[in-house]
Amino acid sequence: MEYKISDKMINMKPSAIREIFKSLGTPGAISFAAGNPAPESFPVADMQRISAEIFANQAVQALQYSVTEGYPRLREQVKARLREKFGIGSENDDLIIVTGGQQGIELSCKVLCNEGDTVIAENPSFIGALNAFRSLGAKIKGVTLQDDGIDIKELEQTLRENPDAKLLYVIPTFQNPAGLTTSLEKRKEIYRLAQKYDVVILEDNPYGELRFAGEDLPTIKKLDTDGRVLYCGSFSKVLSAGMRIGFLLGPKELIQKVVVAKQVEDVHTNIFFQILCSRYMDECDMDAHVEEIRALYRKKAGFMLECLDKYMPECVSYTRPEGGLFLWCTLPDSISLMDFVRRAGENLVFVVPGTAFNCDESAGSQSFRLNYSMPSMEEIEKGIRILGDLVREMA
Amino acid sequence: MEYKISDKMINMKPSAIREIFKSLGTPGAISFAAGNPAPESFPVADMQRISAEIFANQAVQALQYSVTEGYPRLREQVKARLREKFGIGSENDDLIIVTGGQQGIELSCKVLCNEGDTVIAENPSFIGALNAFRSLGAKIKGVTLQDDGIDIKELEQTLRENPDAKLLYVIPTFQNPAGLTTSLEKRKEIYRLAQKYDVVILEDNPYGELRFAGEDLPTIKKLDTDGRVLYCGSFSKVLSAGMRIGFLLGPKELIQKVVVAKQVEDVHTNIFFQILCSRYMDECDMDAHVEEIRALYRKKAGFMLECLDKYMPECVSYTRPEGGLFLWCTLPDSISLMDFVRRAGENLVFVVPGTAFNCDESAGSQSFRLNYSMPSMEEIEKGIRILGDLVREMA
Repeated sequence: MEYKISDKMINMKPSAIREIFKSLGTPGAISFAAGNPAPESFPVADMQRISAEIFANQAVQALQYSVTEGYPRLREQVKARLREKFGIGSENDDLIIVTGGQQGIELSCKVLCNEGDTVIAENPSFIGALNAFRSLGAKIKGVTLQDDGIDIKELEQTLRENPDAKLLYVIPTFQNPAGLTTSLEKRKEIYRLAQKYDVVILEDNPYGELRFAGEDLPTIKKLDTDGRVLYCGSFSKVLSAGMRIGFLLGPKELIQKVVVAKQVEDVHTNIFFQILCSRYMDECDMDAHVEEIRALYRKKAGFMLECLDKYMPECVSYTRPEGGLFLWCTLPDSISLMDFVRRAGENLVFVVPGTAFNCDESAGSQSFRLNYSMPSMEEIEKGIRILGDLVREMA
Repeated sequence: MEYKISDKMINMKPSAIREIFKSLGTPGAISFAAGNPAPESFPVADMQRISAEIFANQAVQALQYSVTEGYPRLREQVKARLREKFGIGSENDDLIIVTGGQQGIELSCKVLCNEGDTVIAENPSFIGALNAFRSLGAKIKGVTLQDDGIDIKELEQTLRENPDAKLLYVIPTFQNPAGLTTSLEKRKEIYRLAQKYDVVILEDNPYGELRFAGEDLPTIKKLDTDGRVLYCGSFSKVLSAGMRIGFLLGPKELIQKVVVAKQVEDVHTNIFFQILCSRYMDECDMDAHVEEIRALYRKKAGFMLECLDKYMPECVSYTRPEGGLFLWCTLPDSISLMDFVRRAGENLVFVVPGTAFNCDESAGSQSFRLNYSMPSMEEIEKGIRILGDLVREMA
């Protein structure tokens, strides 16, 4: 038969990143393409011990259906941690456990946006979020991301021109893909404009705990006086990405709707690993573990920057992230990005072209994203050297 | 601020069943309301052993990001099992692992239906599916469920009157909530009408392996000559519900779109438990385990029917399921269903009123659903006696 695909899904393609993923099997391949946390960052021994304890003491609870909102103790622990670490979460807020931050993003849009409504996002932005918005039939308007965060003037103009904008999606801290952090001044401006034009902000903060340089800044959620900010976080970068556990903190009224929306998507998140996370937070030193990951990424990011300084011709510029997993390189106009990415791949070095992160899918880019959490130090040096040589060849 | 909820979510309410769930904490409460598998049905010892093995041998793989399609070996194993047990799955079909059958249902609708399109379903039907369709802005048209399956004449009329119907959702085997099984003749008629009116069938079969009486019937998917049937299954009722692992088998072209839709919902399903399922299928005797569950439910369903025969006045009718988790009781018109359900709850016996399963939310019902997998034999006897006494009191 001939299939009639829904309008919202007909033009959706698999994420370029996930597709690159599949071509990584080749021996000797060096991937700077993934968004994977370092394998060393998983506290395997602790998780193994706790897993055995759960099977011994509460197996039935951990294998049976559970409530959509999430494991009650874990919800309390995450709320407490967000209060202590970030000073966020009020009496009017509630928190739901979701199947990874990705689900928190998708559900936020589902609850707030009709098909055809506008979501405003930094340009470039996280492809998983942009595709989630597209899959719900939302229109995406991108606003230029500058070194200190979104272009405020352009943001106001975009808000003015799009009265159907329901959601403003931002990653203010160690942005994906650019690795940039929004200044405090701009965080305040973003909140002020959201108030003025009456939109909800979705603050995505999967990397917030992974600062390895500079000083912490208040989240936008911390500035939230009128219950306008949904705050999305995740355990993917601190405990395990594969277990798929994230959380969404926000105004009770919105979280209640998110609960209903989640109920029909997957009933609840894997309860065994919710209990595991909860016991980990009870029994282990989460702060010490996060500190280890920070030290690891400080070393890896620092080394990738050293290698870039050493091997990359001056015509290539790049960001200097203070945390997170990514940095962002920009080629001179004389080099075709797509040719560069293709030839890098032929040399078994995989990077994601900036076009993948464009709000407007037809727009071009001169940038590409590099991940430093996943590759080894040897791979970082070798890969960056190959990319540097390639630029010299193509320039 | 005042929130503007999307049109599709504004009127959505939490599932009545999940809400009843929350009032079960009371000591002495007897729940016939859940859809939970028996706790004894989880192969805890095997899962515990395999879990330890995974942590010992492939922890990083089990905790890292993975591919959206699902753990490759598990996909092959499920395909093989579906081929062997049900004779389904062709070269033109593919299979994706989803976060519980619930996600398979929701994604099917997302890929096929625009907002405002019609989904046709048995009436009554599984509330989780109906709410998933509603959450995507689909209209639901119910077709009366008879003792041997959907009313074929009414189905044809509904298809004729709704040319925008994109999906026909059925649970032909041990239906939820009614516990009824669609006859082979009607399965063929359903397929024929789907061809005639060119709609896709979503065959939901979470209980298909749980037959404890009568003879297996071919699934509708087995009759699928033109790639018209999406077949949704789950590990929830045979290994663990809380791990949230299901699967969707269907035409490659549709499954490819489902993969993209899933990617933006949760990236992939908890990979640790996918590996665990796979190793369970490799190392343990799944058939023997399923046989044990069948024996358990044969005993429990048989005993609940005995108790109904003994304690329930003749004015109440009920189905006699040959498998699955549920049976369906109908009160005489002289008794108000909602009063009955409320008073049963006051007596600490919880049942789900049939209204929860109506395609038309404003319609009434004289029926209620009973679950026999979860309560103990003592609870079944005591609970049914209480319900019988209540009918006598109210009649």
